[in-house]
Amino acid sequence: MKMKQFAVIGLGRFGSSLAKELVNQDLEVLGIDRDEETVEEMSDVLTHAIVADSTEEETLRSIGIRNFDCAIVAIGNDIQASIMTAILLKDLGVKKVVAKALTELHGKVLERLGVDRIIYPERDMGIRVAHQLANPNLLDYIELSKEYTIAELSVPQKLNGVSLQKLDPRAKYGCSVVAINKSSGIIIAPAAADVLNERDVMVIIGTNKQIESFEEELAGN
Amino acid sequence: MKMKQFAVIGLGRFGSSLAKELVNQDLEVLGIDRDEETVEEMSDVLTHAIVADSTEEETLRSIGIRNFDCAIVAIGNDIQASIMTAILLKDLGVKKVVAKALTELHGKVLERLGVDRIIYPERDMGIRVAHQLANPNLLDYIELSKEYTIAELSVPQKLNGVSLQKLDPRAKYGCSVVAINKSSGIIIAPAAADVLNERDVMVIIGTNKQIESFEEELAGN
Amino acid sequence: MKMKQFAVIGLGRFGSSLAKELVNQDLEVLGIDRDEETVEEMSDVLTHAIVADSTEEETLRSIGIRNFDCAIVAIGNDIQASIMTAILLKDLGVKKVVAKALTELHGKVLERLGVDRIIYPERDMGIRVAHQLANPNLLDYIELSKEYTIAELSVPQKLNGVSLQKLDPRAKYGCSVVAINKSSGIIIAPAAADVLNERDVMVIIGTNKQIESFEEELAGN
Amino acid sequence: MKMKQFAVIGLGRFGSSLAKELVNQDLEVLGIDRDEETVEEMSDVLTHAIVADSTEEETLRSIGIRNFDCAIVAIGNDIQASIMTAILLKDLGVKKVVAKALTELHGKVLERLGVDRIIYPERDMGIRVAHQLANPNLLDYIELSKEYTIAELSVPQKLNGVSLQKLDPRAKYGCSVVAINKSSGIIIAPAAADVLNERDVMVIIGTNKQIESFEEELAGN
Amino acid sequence: MKMKQFAVIGLGRFGSSLAKELVNQDLEVLGIDRDEETVEEMSDVLTHAIVADSTEEETLRSIGIRNFDCAIVAIGNDIQASIMTAILLKDLGVKKVVAKALTELHGKVLERLGVDRIIYPERDMGIRVAHQLANPNLLDYIELSKEYTIAELSVPQKLNGVSLQKLDPRAKYGCSVVAINKSSGIIIAPAAADVLNERDVMVIIGTNKQIESFEEELAGN
Amino acid sequence: MKMKQFAVIGLGRFGSSLAKELVNQDLEVLGIDRDEETVEEMSDVLTHAIVADSTEEETLRSIGIRNFDCAIVAIGNDIQASIMTAILLKDLGVKKVVAKALTELHGKVLERLGVDRIIYPERDMGIRVAHQLANPNLLDYIELSKEYTIAELSVPQKLNGVSLQKLDPRAKYGCSVVAINKSSGIIIAPAAADVLNERDVMVIIGTNKQIESFEEELAGN
Amino acid sequence: MKMKQFAVIGLGRFGSSLAKELVNQDLEVLGIDRDEETVEEMSDVLTHAIVADSTEEETLRSIGIRNFDCAIVAIGNDIQASIMTAILLKDLGVKKVVAKALTELHGKVLERLGVDRIIYPERDMGIRVAHQLANPNLLDYIELSKEYTIAELSVPQKLNGVSLQKLDPRAKYGCSVVAINKSSGIIIAPAAADVLNERDVMVIIGTNKQIESFEEELAGN
Amino acid sequence: MKMKQFAVIGLGRFGSSLAKELVNQDLEVLGIDRDEETVEEMSDVLTHAIVADSTEEETLRSIGIRNFDCAIVAIGNDIQASIMTAILLKDLGVKKVVAKALTELHGKVLERLGVDRIIYPERDMGIRVAHQLANPNLLDYIELSKEYTIAELSVPQKLNGVSLQKLDPRAKYGCSVVAINKSSGIIIAPAAADVLNERDVMVIIGTNKQIESFEEELAGN
Repeated sequence: MKMKQFAVIGLGRFGSSLAKELVNQDLEVLGIDRDEETVEEMSDVLTHAIVADSTEEETLRSIGIRNFDCAIVAIGNDIQASIMTAILLKDLGVKKVVAKALTELHGKVLERLGVDRIIYPERDMGIRVAHQLANPNLLDYIELSKEYTIAELSVPQKLNGVSLQKLDPRAKYGCSVVAINKSSGIIIAPAAADVLNERDVMVIIGTNKQIESFEEELAGN
Repeated sequence: MKMKQFAVIGLGRFGSSLAKELVNQDLEVLGIDRDEETVEEMSDVLTHAIVADSTEEETLRSIGIRNFDCAIVAIGNDIQASIMTAILLKDLGVKKVVAKALTELHGKVLERLGVDRIIYPERDMGIRVAHQLANPNLLDYIELSKEYTIAELSVPQKLNGVSLQKLDPRAKYGCSVVAINKSSGIIIAPAAADVLNERDVMVIIGTNKQIESFEEELAGN
Repeated sequence: MKMKQFAVIGLGRFGSSLAKELVNQDLEVLGIDRDEETVEEMSDVLTHAIVADSTEEETLRSIGIRNFDCAIVAIGNDIQASIMTAILLKDLGVKKVVAKALTELHGKVLERLGVDRIIYPERDMGIRVAHQLANPNLLDYIELSKEYTIAELSVPQKLNGVSLQKLDPRAKYGCSVVAINKSSGIIIAPAAADVLNERDVMVIIGTNKQIESFEEELAGN
Repeated sequence: MKMKQFAVIGLGRFGSSLAKELVNQDLEVLGIDRDEETVEEMSDVLTHAIVADSTEEETLRSIGIRNFDCAIVAIGNDIQASIMTAILLKDLGVKKVVAKALTELHGKVLERLGVDRIIYPERDMGIRVAHQLANPNLLDYIELSKEYTIAELSVPQKLNGVSLQKLDPRAKYGCSVVAINKSSGIIIAPAAADVLNERDVMVIIGTNKQIESFEEELAGN
Repeated sequence: MKMKQFAVIGLGRFGSSLAKELVNQDLEVLGIDRDEETVEEMSDVLTHAIVADSTEEETLRSIGIRNFDCAIVAIGNDIQASIMTAILLKDLGVKKVVAKALTELHGKVLERLGVDRIIYPERDMGIRVAHQLANPNLLDYIELSKEYTIAELSVPQKLNGVSLQKLDPRAKYGCSVVAINKSSGIIIAPAAADVLNERDVMVIIGTNKQIESFEEELAGN
Repeated sequence: MKMKQFAVIGLGRFGSSLAKELVNQDLEVLGIDRDEETVEEMSDVLTHAIVADSTEEETLRSIGIRNFDCAIVAIGNDIQASIMTAILLKDLGVKKVVAKALTELHGKVLERLGVDRIIYPERDMGIRVAHQLANPNLLDYIELSKEYTIAELSVPQKLNGVSLQKLDPRAKYGCSVVAINKSSGIIIAPAAADVLNERDVMVIIGTNKQIESFEEELAGN
Repeated sequence: MKMKQFAVIGLGRFGSSLAKELVNQDLEVLGIDRDEETVEEMSDVLTHAIVADSTEEETLRSIGIRNFDCAIVAIGNDIQASIMTAILLKDLGVKKVVAKALTELHGKVLERLGVDRIIYPERDMGIRVAHQLANPNLLDYIELSKEYTIAELSVPQKLNGVSLQKLDPRAKYGCSVVAINKSSGIIIAPAAADVLNERDVMVIIGTNKQIESFEEELAGN
Repeated sequence: MKMKQFAVIGLGRFGSSLAKELVNQDLEVLGIDRDEETVEEMSDVLTHAIVADSTEEETLRSIGIRNFDCAIVAIGNDIQASIMTAILLKDLGVKKVVAKALTELHGKVLERLGVDRIIYPERDMGIRVAHQLANPNLLDYIELSKEYTIAELSVPQKLNGVSLQKLDPRAKYGCSVVAINKSSGIIIAPAAADVLNERDVMVIIGTNKQIESFEEELAGN
């Protein structure tokens, strides 16, 4: 299978982090930025990196942008450039166009222009961090649906030595423990006899409400 | 239990999103920004919102910052203001100080000044999006440890109607399906006879390598 | 029949001229501009004129923009504001949205967002003036189709006293004289016996080529 | 006959459009602009294009400006440069000087300096668009005099299949149909038996009042 | 006889000096400037002083500029404002318009617009000072024509005690001494017996060449 | 006698005019300015012209400024540079330092630093022009002392054909006519029989009061 | 004895520190600065603090500057303002004027204008710190003359328990110990039997060379 | 003993003065500044001088900063650059890091980051000058402790010819004269018979209070 090709346009904090991680995943990445110094810094890290103005159709054509499987518009603050780049990418036939939006309205324009996926990095990260700050034991989470969530929780001191049988979260809160990550190794689908220890991390699944009440129990005294 | 109090300093995209989500979690939030218009826009949404310069000790004192359980320095681009605010918060005795860093060096300074948690929203979001772009079926994921990951994957067309028994991911790739999210409802710890359908979402747990090879199988033809 | 309502957003040279002419046509016109001084100058001329930022949804809503029959986005140089305003107008349900574009790419974005008519005032005026400069007797023209044109030509000195019969443009160049504007009055569908005089203006119809060769004859010695 | 030579000074939106159309008319055009990038972009399109400051007499002399048949001052926003260029062009003996004016006062100064023709592209385009917006069937028009106009009107659905005899605009509104543009071809000086169809375009001549009342009839139900 | 009224527009160094001296001559002077602080400073010195933008016709009308006998456009660096003000003054019917020009081209435009007198303060002062520096005994001078000059010369030490008879400038250099200014009083049309003293100042009349050779004699050893 | 050497520092309107006139007087002139373009323009006109920062002692030394007979500080708007240049010139031993002052305070500093002559071009020109505007027949004048003035006056129509005997200014106003400049030539120390004609110019000497009353007589009806 | 009055003009870092220390010495201090916020901050600390432009003669007069015993011009970066203020202070009759200079040339101008004392805080502090960095045991010093210095030196570990008799600096290096500062108290003119201890501080007097060689001995191993 | 190596980062007034004095002390100094011109000026004076951005880790590494014995962060106004440089220097292992602070808060951050010595040049110089202005005879001083000071005082006229015996400062004020600097030479530990003369300078040691009352006696009449 031919390796996928990505173009990342805009190599600011978000774009450069994204581009580097794609390279870490052994993917081919072309980085594009208007700023010469920025491009120079990234040229060792990425497959290719060029100085170019992505709002000029001729420029995008000349680098054969249509042959890329995915182009990510990660332009920092210039909404106009973001929009102009997005429409050009779509018109030039890039298969998948992903774009970062600064505001809801910006996102709506991108969507209307046919951008395949809109990302709001700072807004989403704000929400994610807020969840973690609100629930001190919450390490990370996945929203499976509007109702269900998988949560990664650190085991508090008060649960040290408590078995799942005794804790019985399914009965008390309705949520299931699907894994326990211990320093000694991970236990998937743990048994009732498995015992929690401080510093363990457990993964639970349940409705938002169930998980919330469970978290509150953990955080309480 | 007394409700926790948060102060969010800097109400840009990250800060305002974080502050709003904390309010959504029924927490008390004071928003602080130097820009009058920004504060006005947020004043309806947050518990309190004030125009203030967070680098002035007297200002922070006068709003009783020491009584806050947690202060988040979400200042956008002004690294100096971020640093000055952070040291004042620590010295004034705020229990927990969280700060957004723009660069590694900025983060290092904040850490040395005793900031409790450093966040790199754009860098982290860049990594997260890169993972999803690299693996088209990957919807979200939690890194449990350096080795283990929980991944939320969309079920591709080719698995439509395939039972877990037939798919047998544990035998073939070493990873377990811990939940299947169907339009009809969620199945936690699904049985071998459960059948996957296109548009279902499955949650699997395994080592990075196991999940990666499973994903490649899903993405391949 | 209820009088139509127009909103003109952006009261620069193009917008203010357009708005004033609509008022001259006895139409109701609301002028909107971000600049206070500009609005003040126009407030005597237009039905209403207000200072507002048209990129804020709330603002547009509060002035009941959805009740306008037609909104013209005549924003001068700020492409981003033009795009944001256009999408808001469409989404808020304005029946007809007309927008001025600065570049082809700008126009393409507006079109994609559903703007009903795109205008390029300076480009179009450039073309019109070029035609007139290229053909000194050409006063004005209408392009009926890619092939046919109606042209308003000044009668040169050399045709002074020449009858249409003698000139016989239909036989010689294939184009018909549909009217002659004389100081004494207009002659519609002039007869063969009608005589041209210097300073008369004649209106002819024909293919572009026919008119061009006729013009060259007029301009030649 | 020797081909005419035009110099277009200022290659913004208006100037570049004008210059390109002159080239389309097979005329020789020298483009002049202070901005290097602008000149470079136009150098393929125009006969010649140079970077120069048109307010320096020596510069204009050295390019032999006096040998041009016509110079168009299409400078965008710099009124002072427009004035200085215009006086130099006149003094250096350019036969015909055309200049774009931004305001009435600017136009008055240019006129006083002997500029042969003053153009207000945005103002004039504003008026033209206003007419079209005010009268939905009006496609284009020529003002023959203060009283008489030729108008190009789209035939509305309600006139589908109606013969000129039945419509009889001359009797009812006093205006004559001088041509009908049908998809099958143009009919010049149509006969009473000719039938209108939706999507046809008719060209009428009459006084402003006559045309206006005819348009209202067309637009009404 | 009714006292004359002057309007000085632009109260910079040149304008304010001119306006103050007109007041010293017991004339009525209205000072106009766009800068509030400048106007405030001059308001005690001039008959009237107002803050106004002289490029707005309505403003000039409202202060009744047409009733002034003379308006001086002393605007500092804004050539455009100078030109716009000048044309307005002429069109509004100010009897005499005097304007300061910054460059030759600026002066040419003003002249073409009908400005009655053009002044180049810095250029003229440069010439005047150059003459004085070139000829150390020259205190001041009037150019009567291209050929003739009146010069005010300080009497050097070497002429101390010399009578006009002995000096005999008319015979030797062709120039006449028309006055001697002594500390004891002025001698008009001095006699041959009158004696010069160091520190006296003499006024001579002659051709430029005659005066030059006389000056060289005075300056030599 | 060795030709004198002048250095003119600052080649703005005043400085360049002064420098050019010195060259016209056959003197050697070095022009100095910080702006490259300005220096280039003057390099053909002056003996030498260099780009240099006159506030750097080393620069002034390296061009041998001490060997110049006179240096004129004609720096336009930068008071600090003017002061720094002046002190350096004095300390480096330039024989005569002349400097242009922008304000009274600036002039006072220059004087205190030992500058030999302070010039206020715009202030002085303002006064000179004010005198001429106040007295329409006054063409030019020299102030001989606080009391006495020589004035150059145009002969008004009402004196056409009047002899000096009849006019008798000495008897009536106390001032003497020392010369009459006629198109046919100049008359020095004119006789009583000499007749004035319109367009002649007369040179008179007298006290300010005498000249003023004479001028009023001339200007009256 | 009447208390002395000081005016400190410019309340930046140097000026505010100086002004505060004068107040600490129980002196009356008026602080003056152009910046409102700066003045407000200092108004609690100083006797008086006002917002004023010190380059305006009228302002200085109105605050009765002539009655102050000493005025310190501590203006930060605006050399022109510093010079203008200094000349006004001298001319208005302030008894003692002290001024901070940014460069040697600035200092020279101030001196020439009669400023009584010129201070170069950053230059002098640079020299002082350099001495201390060059000699690690050197805490502080006074230059008594070009030759003699008093130095305050920390006693290094190697001299712990050594008596002055044994150290005998006068014999070995020619410099005398005039005091030893011990935690138990200061010993002035210590005797030969007095013993040094680590952490003591000794004050020595001698020529620069003597002290230098003594310091090197202390710093060596 | 190997010569010590210093790096001075930031070559403004404070940094360049410090660097030059270190060179005067025969030490090796590398100067670093972002401004090319500044570096060029210092390159003749310092051992080495380079243009570099000290906030880039790679840059500091490449110049081998870890081998320097001491680095001084003398950056002028950019607090962020000062902080970033300081943390890099500490992390790269520079033995001693000294930094200039602009404000107390800046100093506190530097301290927290492990900077070995914080300097406030303008604040300290302000205090030093204040002391001297408050006590006119005080030339310089060293604060030995919170209580004791060594002061260098000029001998006022009133003490001319007075012997130490008669003055007897130890008895009257409690402070000892440790040296008298006379034009004829320095007297260390002067005897009671030694006589003071105007213009002599005496060095005294005592408590702050003792010295203060002695100074007051000297300053009084």
